[in-house]
Amino acid sequence: MAYFRIEYYSKALRRETSFEVMIPCDPREGMPAPEGPMRTLFLLHGYTGKAGNYVPFDLPYKYNFAIVMPSAENSFYLNGLSTGHAFQTLVGEELVEFVRKTFGLAGDPTNTGIAGLSMGGFGALHTGLAYPRTFGKIGAMSSAFIHHEVAQMKPGQGNEVANYDYYRECFGEPALLEESDNNPETLIRKLKAAGEKIPEIYMACGTEDFLIENNRAMHRFLEAEGVPHEYHEGPGIHDMVFWTEYIQKIVRWMFG
Amino acid sequence: MAYFRIEYYSKALRRETSFEVMIPCDPREGMPAPEGPMRTLFLLHGYTGKAGNYVPFDLPYKYNFAIVMPSAENSFYLNGLSTGHAFQTLVGEELVEFVRKTFGLAGDPTNTGIAGLSMGGFGALHTGLAYPRTFGKIGAMSSAFIHHEVAQMKPGQGNEVANYDYYRECFGEPALLEESDNNPETLIRKLKAAGEKIPEIYMACGTEDFLIENNRAMHRFLEAEGVPHEYHEGPGIHDMVFWTEYIQKIVRWMFG
Amino acid sequence: MAYFRIEYYSKALRRETSFEVMIPCDPREGMPAPEGPMRTLFLLHGYTGKAGNYVPFDLPYKYNFAIVMPSAENSFYLNGLSTGHAFQTLVGEELVEFVRKTFGLAGDPTNTGIAGLSMGGFGALHTGLAYPRTFGKIGAMSSAFIHHEVAQMKPGQGNEVANYDYYRECFGEPALLEESDNNPETLIRKLKAAGEKIPEIYMACGTEDFLIENNRAMHRFLEAEGVPHEYHEGPGIHDMVFWTEYIQKIVRWMFG
Amino acid sequence: MAYFRIEYYSKALRRETSFEVMIPCDPREGMPAPEGPMRTLFLLHGYTGKAGNYVPFDLPYKYNFAIVMPSAENSFYLNGLSTGHAFQTLVGEELVEFVRKTFGLAGDPTNTGIAGLSMGGFGALHTGLAYPRTFGKIGAMSSAFIHHEVAQMKPGQGNEVANYDYYRECFGEPALLEESDNNPETLIRKLKAAGEKIPEIYMACGTEDFLIENNRAMHRFLEAEGVPHEYHEGPGIHDMVFWTEYIQKIVRWMFG
Repeated sequence: MAYFRIEYYSKALRRETSFEVMIPCDPREGMPAPEGPMRTLFLLHGYTGKAGNYVPFDLPYKYNFAIVMPSAENSFYLNGLSTGHAFQTLVGEELVEFVRKTFGLAGDPTNTGIAGLSMGGFGALHTGLAYPRTFGKIGAMSSAFIHHEVAQMKPGQGNEVANYDYYRECFGEPALLEESDNNPETLIRKLKAAGEKIPEIYMACGTEDFLIENNRAMHRFLEAEGVPHEYHEGPGIHDMVFWTEYIQKIVRWMFG
Repeated sequence: MAYFRIEYYSKALRRETSFEVMIPCDPREGMPAPEGPMRTLFLLHGYTGKAGNYVPFDLPYKYNFAIVMPSAENSFYLNGLSTGHAFQTLVGEELVEFVRKTFGLAGDPTNTGIAGLSMGGFGALHTGLAYPRTFGKIGAMSSAFIHHEVAQMKPGQGNEVANYDYYRECFGEPALLEESDNNPETLIRKLKAAGEKIPEIYMACGTEDFLIENNRAMHRFLEAEGVPHEYHEGPGIHDMVFWTEYIQKIVRWMFG
Repeated sequence: MAYFRIEYYSKALRRETSFEVMIPCDPREGMPAPEGPMRTLFLLHGYTGKAGNYVPFDLPYKYNFAIVMPSAENSFYLNGLSTGHAFQTLVGEELVEFVRKTFGLAGDPTNTGIAGLSMGGFGALHTGLAYPRTFGKIGAMSSAFIHHEVAQMKPGQGNEVANYDYYRECFGEPALLEESDNNPETLIRKLKAAGEKIPEIYMACGTEDFLIENNRAMHRFLEAEGVPHEYHEGPGIHDMVFWTEYIQKIVRWMFG
Repeated sequence: MAYFRIEYYSKALRRETSFEVMIPCDPREGMPAPEGPMRTLFLLHGYTGKAGNYVPFDLPYKYNFAIVMPSAENSFYLNGLSTGHAFQTLVGEELVEFVRKTFGLAGDPTNTGIAGLSMGGFGALHTGLAYPRTFGKIGAMSSAFIHHEVAQMKPGQGNEVANYDYYRECFGEPALLEESDNNPETLIRKLKAAGEKIPEIYMACGTEDFLIENNRAMHRFLEAEGVPHEYHEGPGIHDMVFWTEYIQKIVRWMFG
């Protein structure tokens, strides 16, 4: 197993930044070399997190795939209003191109998944839908589907997590959010209208998670739109116990 | 010489972040242990940069001080509008407290300097003036004193570097900037009015630097306000050749 | 929680090297500042490992102590024959001095423990006994107490793990090992003869571990010598499941 | 420019280790994508050093090549006597295979160079000659060609740098060294006898360097053997001033 910490200049962010990659490429285990380019999982951290703060070390060996871990600050993996706040572009374009070119990772959606937890669950669904020809499979755990709350916010308002300016910076003008491409539901509708293939989706949330109703709402939306998807609830709260269990299930579903 | 890469949860940024520190604390050189706590230089990178992208490795041994290198993204070292965009607090309070407590570095302004280049030159002057009881000496190289330009910006405008939203996020409402504490000149006026001690200041800029007029304007302002300061121009542009020369001069002035 | 990756020049190794430190020193949890200097656990990796390859992230917050993680290659934490192969000195002197001076960690044996697994279990016991005034408590898990096997080796021999030259380099001349200070039993006898206080000892090994008999032999030796110690066997093999369970028990015993 | 810090399990060393890589692969400069796989320079540090302690940051952009920086401790880049002390194999086989497979770097000797300073100059020449089908070009600066001194050492002897056990561990039995493959001159003779192509060689040493006579002796040996090579002396001692000048010349000679 090789673990890479990478510093580079990001065009999307207009500054030097870093990300991390894990590849089962070293000779430790005497694994047979994989046939063809290696499959890739983009793994997205939650609010307050960064690359590498949860790494399922055992899985890449088991299923023979690479993990790419961006650091996306508290951006919700969206292109914010400010120059250099382009985290959707960072993950969905720049890093995809970087790791495919630099590490020769698989270049087709069948072998490219994206998953995350909490804010990263939102990011996985949104980024996957924004680039359906890049990501074939989406795993969204305990996802912070907060876009409808944000859409209701008025200037000067906010909540206990962050102020109005933060939400506006990340999601764009709240009043425009429902119809905006930052709303994953808008992306679903557009993909359907365009006849585009929608990536396969696996959602999971703990029944005691404070975000459970947001996840149920997204599940109902997908059902109403006729979008096939796996939806799972299980005992659990918004913590690593749940994510440790479900990242295993998601990876098996993606690459098993 | 010991070099530290540090990851921690920042209250100011509301997320995990990192910074770097260099301390001449190892036994390589057979240096005598310094008397008392070690002097500290906070060294600020420019726009597009990050911690560690210019490190004057020879100086800490020569003058026996530690270097603390924050990563402040493209924030201009200001507290922006959004929650978690508190880079002034990060550098001027949180990191100061962190390194003093964790590394036992000197706790008085006489032994605490702040310096930077370009955006980091703005940051050094602004942060130093915002915390005059923390930083006794300020070194500002090729500083991006762009606050008067920003104050003129109207919604929808921006420039070739960044858009209006970026400047508004960093500096606050442009229309309010002249009087705001994000304008270092405002801080000077307030410190004078309050009878507070203003940190010692060393400014330098290359005569061919595109920011030379901004630096001359700040120099004239300080003269007009009767604020003692060193001001130096020399041949040079906005590049590492100039900064490599002047960081030596600034450190000698600070700690020599 | 702050995590430090540190590069420095090691006098003991005569070259630049690195180690890692975890300190519960950031403001995330709103913990009360500890009274006095922070307690410290030196945590030693096993054969094939390095600093940071097993980190009990939850424990420092729970019991308020720092973890220092050396990288000691495959040295058995001994001073080998070659210049620069001084890993006992690295851990027991150089790093102790470094972290106490640089991070202000506790300077007394009551608040300084050393623990490890496999080769690191050997290292914890040996280093603790070599510096009984530095380390007050020793935790040795699944320890590679292989010194009696090594003492039997003849030139040209070795085993499936490594060749004779490797063992000779690490342990010194095998023929002299039984009486040498690289044998932890020799250290016990010398400490007793000198009337020195022996650190408190906690040993644990899985009943299905291939090293169980080596651990039982050390347990019998300590009993025969009248050295008080905790000795625990439990279900388990030579793996992270066992160590994850017992590092919790050892830290509670040390600092609980 | 992207900078990679890589941790992995090394079969050659039988333990986890790290190395560093710099690739001009990011979109900062708007460089045209290179045609075909990227050229590679293996850059070897000196005694007391490690990966990354001297990095010619400007050169990869200028000539479009990757730099691979091993950490080889104080090994002289040789396969020592002990299991796991296989630094020749690490650099000349394991890392070559790793970076070619993982980063898709150039796989032919024409596009693969090896260079180093001091101990790394010895390593560059020796490793290049040990793998002449891998490395097409060798750059050796201020090289520690000390093999004739080592060959004279008797048990118990050593010098001010290290003891006899250290030299024996690195170079093998001194009494056998002259004829051994650890002597680069032996490799030259064998390559000639086998009719193998000898890599192109560029040697440089400062006239005031304490190793100047060792470098002149190697130069005379190559002349006597009729091995074409560039040999340069210039004003300078054993320091970064000389190496900063000559790494530029060597890279231009290799890839210009």
